[in-house]
Amino acid sequence: MLDRVNAMSDGVVAIALTLLVLSIEVPQSHDFTNGGLIAYLVKVEYQLTVYLVSFVLIGCYWVLQNVMFHYFRHGTRVLTWLNLLFLFLLTLLPLTTQLIGTYRDEPLVMVVYGAVSIACSLSLALIWWYSNHIGMVVWPKIDPTVERTFMRRILYGACLSLVAVGVSFLNVRMSHFVFLSMPLLYLSDRQVDRHWSELVAANNGEVDGIDD
Amino acid sequence: MLDRVNAMSDGVVAIALTLLVLSIEVPQSHDFTNGGLIAYLVKVEYQLTVYLVSFVLIGCYWVLQNVMFHYFRHGTRVLTWLNLLFLFLLTLLPLTTQLIGTYRDEPLVMVVYGAVSIACSLSLALIWWYSNHIGMVVWPKIDPTVERTFMRRILYGACLSLVAVGVSFLNVRMSHFVFLSMPLLYLSDRQVDRHWSELVAANNGEVDGIDD
Amino acid sequence: MLDRVNAMSDGVVAIALTLLVLSIEVPQSHDFTNGGLIAYLVKVEYQLTVYLVSFVLIGCYWVLQNVMFHYFRHGTRVLTWLNLLFLFLLTLLPLTTQLIGTYRDEPLVMVVYGAVSIACSLSLALIWWYSNHIGMVVWPKIDPTVERTFMRRILYGACLSLVAVGVSFLNVRMSHFVFLSMPLLYLSDRQVDRHWSELVAANNGEVDGIDD
Amino acid sequence: MLDRVNAMSDGVVAIALTLLVLSIEVPQSHDFTNGGLIAYLVKVEYQLTVYLVSFVLIGCYWVLQNVMFHYFRHGTRVLTWLNLLFLFLLTLLPLTTQLIGTYRDEPLVMVVYGAVSIACSLSLALIWWYSNHIGMVVWPKIDPTVERTFMRRILYGACLSLVAVGVSFLNVRMSHFVFLSMPLLYLSDRQVDRHWSELVAANNGEVDGIDD
Repeated sequence: MLDRVNAMSDGVVAIALTLLVLSIEVPQSHDFTNGGLIAYLVKVEYQLTVYLVSFVLIGCYWVLQNVMFHYFRHGTRVLTWLNLLFLFLLTLLPLTTQLIGTYRDEPLVMVVYGAVSIACSLSLALIWWYSNHIGMVVWPKIDPTVERTFMRRILYGACLSLVAVGVSFLNVRMSHFVFLSMPLLYLSDRQVDRHWSELVAANNGEVDGIDD
Repeated sequence: MLDRVNAMSDGVVAIALTLLVLSIEVPQSHDFTNGGLIAYLVKVEYQLTVYLVSFVLIGCYWVLQNVMFHYFRHGTRVLTWLNLLFLFLLTLLPLTTQLIGTYRDEPLVMVVYGAVSIACSLSLALIWWYSNHIGMVVWPKIDPTVERTFMRRILYGACLSLVAVGVSFLNVRMSHFVFLSMPLLYLSDRQVDRHWSELVAANNGEVDGIDD
Repeated sequence: MLDRVNAMSDGVVAIALTLLVLSIEVPQSHDFTNGGLIAYLVKVEYQLTVYLVSFVLIGCYWVLQNVMFHYFRHGTRVLTWLNLLFLFLLTLLPLTTQLIGTYRDEPLVMVVYGAVSIACSLSLALIWWYSNHIGMVVWPKIDPTVERTFMRRILYGACLSLVAVGVSFLNVRMSHFVFLSMPLLYLSDRQVDRHWSELVAANNGEVDGIDD
Repeated sequence: MLDRVNAMSDGVVAIALTLLVLSIEVPQSHDFTNGGLIAYLVKVEYQLTVYLVSFVLIGCYWVLQNVMFHYFRHGTRVLTWLNLLFLFLLTLLPLTTQLIGTYRDEPLVMVVYGAVSIACSLSLALIWWYSNHIGMVVWPKIDPTVERTFMRRILYGACLSLVAVGVSFLNVRMSHFVFLSMPLLYLSDRQVDRHWSELVAANNGEVDGIDD
């Protein structure tokens, strides 16, 4: 069951990532003769930034879900439905991306966007909590420190989204850059990854090390 | 052949889930200054509910198809085509979702929506019936009680859709909540799942328990 | 390489199937009060038939590609590019579907549609010919009769498309039914399938019988 | 982790390929009676060429990514993010395709298109460089000549894009044909492939030869 939950999640993420690009409209009658290319690029620059922000956010949540599901021995129905909840919230990101692309420099729209991003983080935290304490689907030898470290890392994302929403009331453009810094949180997840490699080795599984 | 039927089904489900979000339109000129955010959220609340209802329905049918295909030893051409029939009916859900999002509080549109949902259930029932009685693709030791229990569970979904259509003539909003209760039918499929785990263990397959 | 070629093909097919439903428009202001539901269903009935025709055609070509790729031991670059050619032609089907949905009862548009369908068949025939005579990617013990039977079956599809185009000059609706009969050609591919099962068994692979 | 990175990449490529076809518009009121079919085909011929060009480019980059990831033993976080960067640039191709479909015979738009294509090549070169020199994720026995040959091949694509942009200032249509010649660069990658087959054999993996 876990295989197909992963396959479906990858599909939804791939579509969500690609749908985003549809929110960038191609102007129908633009004059390219006198420095028109620069004028055009300036015009779409805002939408491109917004696209990049959402691409990066969806990427972050996908990497987190990816690492998390590596810890799971098997799937359960509740896990499937919690993952569907996560995917539901994730598919709201392309919608809210269109919203912040249409209503530029409007902090209230950034509140909606940030709320969806925080909800994605919290749904991942819920999956992690459920898997460790209710569903018992995690590989048995998992270290409680690793469990807590990973939970903290998930919640860091929610905090960063909160900070970005706060910053948007000062300057909407600056809040985009706060969101863009999110991958830095997740680039080097060494402690969790090292533990995971050891775990798989101990369980005689094939070592498909995430980071070494 | 079964692998690729599953891969393609996961793809169609992933796209159907994500396409739904496209049916929610972003208003082009909305005033966010004076309590405009709340006005906006109230405006899209109906479409969001409709989106959630369809996401949940497609999720239910995907989980059912998922569990069902775990019971299959190999694929046949007829099974592939019956699965394509199921996917065809499933892709009508995003279309009818747009319909009930456009014609709000119109019970006749809910009849069309409910009919598509019932057709999805019945096509799954047809696949299950074919697999057990004609195609002989199910693992040999399957218990007849489990077969009947699973069939009954599939048809419960059709009944719930029927109830939801009936309720829509009283109140369209209430019928949405009837649809939203469908996952409760499928959250704990313990008898079927327990049997399946035993079955796989008996056949020396790897135990990838759905629920324990 | 073959795995990822298959995964990508399944993705393109899944998207092509689901994109088709986008070609059915939801009328914005329709009166549902006085027998409006029947009037509405009559209105979309043409587009639904066209959708079903294209769903069935894409399904046929996917099943053919599926069976064909089961015969391949490994991939080559040329095979990958020939498969991309097939996918390119396949993605033209949603486009021509929109065309025949917009220009109803216009035989000339059916010529374009039929031409794309024939091109899909011919590209599959080219892949099969290349694989047997140039690329040498087919399992070694393949029977020349099976090779020819399979080629003939691929070309039957092209012939049926040709017939459907001819019929469209008499009656466009009738030509839809000719296209809809295509799966009947491919439902029972017993000789090819039986051979394939024996082949896999002889090569000590796991038997994942397509049809028994 | 590598499996899911591949699955997601295949998903994004499949969607990008299929989205392209949406950029071809179906004219709403066209007269098919007097030689209207030819007039119509002439009208969409430009868009079809542009579609084919982008399909071929995305195909090239997918094949390159495909071959490259065959060399990798395991994934790392940085590799995942570099791959997301590549996918981000790849999803800009459908957007710029719409641009060159809308602004025909405009060399400046071809500059934007070429720049995105060059960026895709360079991101692949970056992944290859990282994998060999920083991430150490490549199978250990890789020959330095093969490493350099593969890098050169990636950069050939960037050079071809540069040539195409230059040609577009002379004639935009001719630059399309320069882009269309790109697969010729990648059809016979024999040295790299031969090395790869030997490598896998030496590591006792299953031989899933890319090329003979």
